[in-house]
Amino acid sequence: MSGSTFGTLFKITTWGESHGTGIGVVIDGCPAGLPLSEEKIQAYLNRRKPGQTRYSTPRKEDDLVTIQSGVFDGRTTGCPISLAVMNTSQRSKDYSAIAQYYRPGHADYTFTEKYGFRDYRGGGRSSGRETIGRVAAGAIAAEFLKELGVTVQAYTKSIGPISIDYVACSTENIEKSSLYMPDLTASEKAEAYLLETMQKGDSAGGVIECIVTGLPAGIGEPVFDKLDACLAKAIMSIGAVKGFEVGSGFSCASMTGSTHNDSFISDHGKVSKATNHAGGILGGISDGSEIIFRAAIKPTPSISTTQQTVDADGVPLTVNITGRHDPVIVPRAVVVVESMAALTIADLLLSHMTSQLSHIKQFFGVDTNL
Amino acid sequence: MSGSTFGTLFKITTWGESHGTGIGVVIDGCPAGLPLSEEKIQAYLNRRKPGQTRYSTPRKEDDLVTIQSGVFDGRTTGCPISLAVMNTSQRSKDYSAIAQYYRPGHADYTFTEKYGFRDYRGGGRSSGRETIGRVAAGAIAAEFLKELGVTVQAYTKSIGPISIDYVACSTENIEKSSLYMPDLTASEKAEAYLLETMQKGDSAGGVIECIVTGLPAGIGEPVFDKLDACLAKAIMSIGAVKGFEVGSGFSCASMTGSTHNDSFISDHGKVSKATNHAGGILGGISDGSEIIFRAAIKPTPSISTTQQTVDADGVPLTVNITGRHDPVIVPRAVVVVESMAALTIADLLLSHMTSQLSHIKQFFGVDTNL
Amino acid sequence: MSGSTFGTLFKITTWGESHGTGIGVVIDGCPAGLPLSEEKIQAYLNRRKPGQTRYSTPRKEDDLVTIQSGVFDGRTTGCPISLAVMNTSQRSKDYSAIAQYYRPGHADYTFTEKYGFRDYRGGGRSSGRETIGRVAAGAIAAEFLKELGVTVQAYTKSIGPISIDYVACSTENIEKSSLYMPDLTASEKAEAYLLETMQKGDSAGGVIECIVTGLPAGIGEPVFDKLDACLAKAIMSIGAVKGFEVGSGFSCASMTGSTHNDSFISDHGKVSKATNHAGGILGGISDGSEIIFRAAIKPTPSISTTQQTVDADGVPLTVNITGRHDPVIVPRAVVVVESMAALTIADLLLSHMTSQLSHIKQFFGVDTNL
Amino acid sequence: MSGSTFGTLFKITTWGESHGTGIGVVIDGCPAGLPLSEEKIQAYLNRRKPGQTRYSTPRKEDDLVTIQSGVFDGRTTGCPISLAVMNTSQRSKDYSAIAQYYRPGHADYTFTEKYGFRDYRGGGRSSGRETIGRVAAGAIAAEFLKELGVTVQAYTKSIGPISIDYVACSTENIEKSSLYMPDLTASEKAEAYLLETMQKGDSAGGVIECIVTGLPAGIGEPVFDKLDACLAKAIMSIGAVKGFEVGSGFSCASMTGSTHNDSFISDHGKVSKATNHAGGILGGISDGSEIIFRAAIKPTPSISTTQQTVDADGVPLTVNITGRHDPVIVPRAVVVVESMAALTIADLLLSHMTSQLSHIKQFFGVDTNL
Repeated sequence: MSGSTFGTLFKITTWGESHGTGIGVVIDGCPAGLPLSEEKIQAYLNRRKPGQTRYSTPRKEDDLVTIQSGVFDGRTTGCPISLAVMNTSQRSKDYSAIAQYYRPGHADYTFTEKYGFRDYRGGGRSSGRETIGRVAAGAIAAEFLKELGVTVQAYTKSIGPISIDYVACSTENIEKSSLYMPDLTASEKAEAYLLETMQKGDSAGGVIECIVTGLPAGIGEPVFDKLDACLAKAIMSIGAVKGFEVGSGFSCASMTGSTHNDSFISDHGKVSKATNHAGGILGGISDGSEIIFRAAIKPTPSISTTQQTVDADGVPLTVNITGRHDPVIVPRAVVVVESMAALTIADLLLSHMTSQLSHIKQFFGVDTNL
Repeated sequence: MSGSTFGTLFKITTWGESHGTGIGVVIDGCPAGLPLSEEKIQAYLNRRKPGQTRYSTPRKEDDLVTIQSGVFDGRTTGCPISLAVMNTSQRSKDYSAIAQYYRPGHADYTFTEKYGFRDYRGGGRSSGRETIGRVAAGAIAAEFLKELGVTVQAYTKSIGPISIDYVACSTENIEKSSLYMPDLTASEKAEAYLLETMQKGDSAGGVIECIVTGLPAGIGEPVFDKLDACLAKAIMSIGAVKGFEVGSGFSCASMTGSTHNDSFISDHGKVSKATNHAGGILGGISDGSEIIFRAAIKPTPSISTTQQTVDADGVPLTVNITGRHDPVIVPRAVVVVESMAALTIADLLLSHMTSQLSHIKQFFGVDTNL
Repeated sequence: MSGSTFGTLFKITTWGESHGTGIGVVIDGCPAGLPLSEEKIQAYLNRRKPGQTRYSTPRKEDDLVTIQSGVFDGRTTGCPISLAVMNTSQRSKDYSAIAQYYRPGHADYTFTEKYGFRDYRGGGRSSGRETIGRVAAGAIAAEFLKELGVTVQAYTKSIGPISIDYVACSTENIEKSSLYMPDLTASEKAEAYLLETMQKGDSAGGVIECIVTGLPAGIGEPVFDKLDACLAKAIMSIGAVKGFEVGSGFSCASMTGSTHNDSFISDHGKVSKATNHAGGILGGISDGSEIIFRAAIKPTPSISTTQQTVDADGVPLTVNITGRHDPVIVPRAVVVVESMAALTIADLLLSHMTSQLSHIKQFFGVDTNL
Repeated sequence: MSGSTFGTLFKITTWGESHGTGIGVVIDGCPAGLPLSEEKIQAYLNRRKPGQTRYSTPRKEDDLVTIQSGVFDGRTTGCPISLAVMNTSQRSKDYSAIAQYYRPGHADYTFTEKYGFRDYRGGGRSSGRETIGRVAAGAIAAEFLKELGVTVQAYTKSIGPISIDYVACSTENIEKSSLYMPDLTASEKAEAYLLETMQKGDSAGGVIECIVTGLPAGIGEPVFDKLDACLAKAIMSIGAVKGFEVGSGFSCASMTGSTHNDSFISDHGKVSKATNHAGGILGGISDGSEIIFRAAIKPTPSISTTQQTVDADGVPLTVNITGRHDPVIVPRAVVVVESMAALTIADLLLSHMTSQLSHIKQFFGVDTNL
């Protein structure tokens, strides 16, 4: 087992290392008939591409995606879609030094303990480049959801100590901020903070928030495959995420039932809720409101200040990690969060179709009055 | 699909509703040879049993477990273990009123949207009694882990505004507190807070923290089935949980890399870490330190103060939910959190055994020098 | 792992041993709204019940099923359905002798090798009683299929050397034959053969054929989860089955393409096939014709003639297996074959619903012309 | 869902169409440390390559494999191994005619019914080229099994009416026969039969037999994931297979218990069986004997004689399928059968490691006497 497959009906399998031949993903179970092109997928990949601002690594990574199967005459065929992004600049020599010791905050030590040895070039499988497969697949899930009127939108909620209130922001501002932080004043402060952090050879973390709109009520399974549980796994499986919360999240712990409960209201018989502490999920099933969740992203572990560590023999040494590293990965992770959310929701939307006998009879054209 | 199965190798399937015949679970994949008795499982179930203090519902629930299969001569046989807890007091009449409307904060509305109708008796499948299956199975997972020197210990970290620092507490105090809160002064304050909350007809939430000791390095899979991702799903699948974090958790967002990174150190060649912001997990794989995570529990939605809601036709009404409900579920959820953690770790421990060819050759008695 | 779960969307998990507390099954993913009662399930269980003719064991087994969850107001709720059949006559003393040696043709030796020891009472988990869980769950799958106009009908095609041609038979005769063999002349011959076999202390095998009607084209997945591949696993997982074939089966090996290929024909534009060597499956996907497959059942291994074997220490000995055993299990296995087929088809019918974007948009009420 | 993933712990996912960019597979869960090179995998692929004799299609297909991930310093890393075989000669024009009608014996009709349209170029996903992914992955599984002393060997047992008895043959002869038929006299007869068949514009089928040696007792799970059930699914999922049998197979149906049961014997305490009607599997678990199974392969459906069919509107027409097609696929399918068997067994070997507590304690270095 190595756990590189995600999903039950809309299922993806990723492969690839930072400095191998490339990175890829196979999407199995995407419904037939979805219009798809490399351009559409590339647009998502470009959002995670480094080198766009001074707050991300200046490494040049074109990350051009190729569709290798599963699409015919511009539409998905229902068969597995293989996507590949070839690595264009393999520089094993850059990384040979780290073969000898364990970088703090990285997976060098744990991979070695698990597998007996490791592909140390650029972090190998535990590199942030692994998320290319997630985003390429997530792009297809997001396109699928769009067809059903469901949109998934993430943005930077905080970087270091600078945090925003999304309710006061305009969604259009997300793309205007180089940090995907829609409060543009806060975004400037965050840039200043990052500049200062970089100058100290240090790095920053932050919080990403994600909102799903247009999702009908009824999505999610009631016990272990609750919508929020599946989202939690999806998001926590992204490398640097240390926390996940939905709706009120950790703040619920100090609230009371009378303030936390969302009253049901109705408009001409259409049921909705007066507030949304639930984050759009009750009993693990979507309630028709917006889904809202947040992910905490740790500061990038690759920093140039001096750190203590040990080598493979346990001998202590100090290291200064040089090279081109992001001082913060939050902005680039925004589209990764969206991708994992889109994949999760696509999967649960499909399984929901099988929930009611009357729906199934209608689907197969059986008279439900018989 | 209804998502009542959890795990890959150590796999459980739960069933049952609050007011049906009973609640049960089938554990498939528990290794053969584990000493097991109903007494051992009952001890875990007793920890979630209500009626033990005035801060939990005074309902009498004996919740006696029966082993129906998979154990022979006092040991597990390797075949599925069926556990059942029969419901002794079915009182459908108590709940007939709630058939007509949607309780705020409950899953009444979402179940109806998903399935077209619902078993409204006591919340049906979405009742807290569903966790009986988790705890009964978790007891077996915990017993299995004990055999390998791994212990899973959860406790109440906060209730409402009262929070504790576990480092300053003694583990023995956990059982001394009726709230499983090992700082006994804080525990008394929390009791006073709960009493006040109850008198207002309101309810409280809190945070549960869990620590896993003795877990070797190397457990967890590197991409989607990361140890923290699997724990996140396990814990977020518990009814009232709104947030999950590991190690530094959400506080990582405002830290810097130089403060967040844990330095590797060594003692006679044995590698460990100077700090544990990682919570014992790097790259999704255990690093040999303690695993530490937290879950945020929302205030019990069943409160006796007046609430706004609608009926099945969307007609507004006000409700006062009467009956015997916990003013806080945190203490009873402690063992549920432990159970889900134990199940997750047992599963990943087993899959880890297949990670290295040399280990496999040794297992099957093949000379590894050939 | 112990592999007691079957299916992806319509998923079952069985438990129980021959001489334990009972036998049961949890069905997870059965769509909500299916009318269900214990009587309906019992009718299927009665078809596998022993003691009905002199060709099955005279053991008295009432095998009364109880629904423990997942049904409310006479309909399935969409939540897991737990079914249990308690063992009424536990006679461990009858079987203590076989604890000491390995019965030829049984799983005594392999269970011991796998698990280190075994529940030797009546074969434990490897007893034919394990199929009670399959049939109870299969009854629900069959009821579900009926709602969609799909029927699954199996019957005895051969016992020992006596074989029939179903095309020449009337379906109504299946129930008229105590062996479920619809050629009543052949059925009498088979009875005579069985009587003779029993008098020799020996046992017989046979072939079961199964026909599925009403299945629309398009069911089954194209690569590993082909309809015939999934059926093969389902049927071969029944204890005594040694072979599986679909349509022309093994006879295809000596045919030529020009005789084996089924021509497509049409009636007012509705496509069908002139012949059905394919057995209703092309490329792993149903083609709208009848599905036809066969299973080879080995002679019951429990025979009273003297056999050579060894004990747990490898010491040779001779054994005469006494007790109440079926001289042939084919008739009782007919409903087991039907059950496994129904479960397989129900699962693939559900997953098929997610195959086309246009169907999904229609399901969720999205205008497909946009 | 499209069912392109196979296996639980040793898991593969295939992709690709006959005339798309290429064919590939991702192997996830291969243990770390296995020596692996493209040469080793290529050797297996070459065995299924066409153009080697006049009895296979003269199409030139180099089918060169590339390892794209998961191997470092000549050994597997434990992370997903991506293998790709690019299609070098895409000739969509060759196949445009078949877009208009349904070829008898092919999946044209069923794919269209399932997905609403199809990639008609060369059969798309239902082409025999899909097996490239199986063989590439199977090569790795076979290499893994070799390290444990397990070998999987298939060969042609029959072509049309010519059948052989393997017991009388020498294994070395398998490679000497261009049909992989180790009785060289029979092989010549089969060649003559094929020549005659080709001259008639017709095609032939046959039977492949496979023998697994060196497999320890205890492999396979007792209920749904029986070794023979898993093999059945694996083998029946290969395009042209219509039947599967293990050990005595269909011949068991007319045997009696006294002739079919295999007596246990022992040699210095080591248990074995006097005969092997079981085919090495009892109760779904390997018994330490050779595993023997057979697969029936239908005659190639692409034949040049005139056939009746219909077009997409149901209008009847006659077709003569021209082009370069195998008159028999049995010889090329031999390595495909081996591959699927190797994948199945590798997966079940790994899951078996988790069966006994005492083995697990030993694995993790816990004193089993405590």
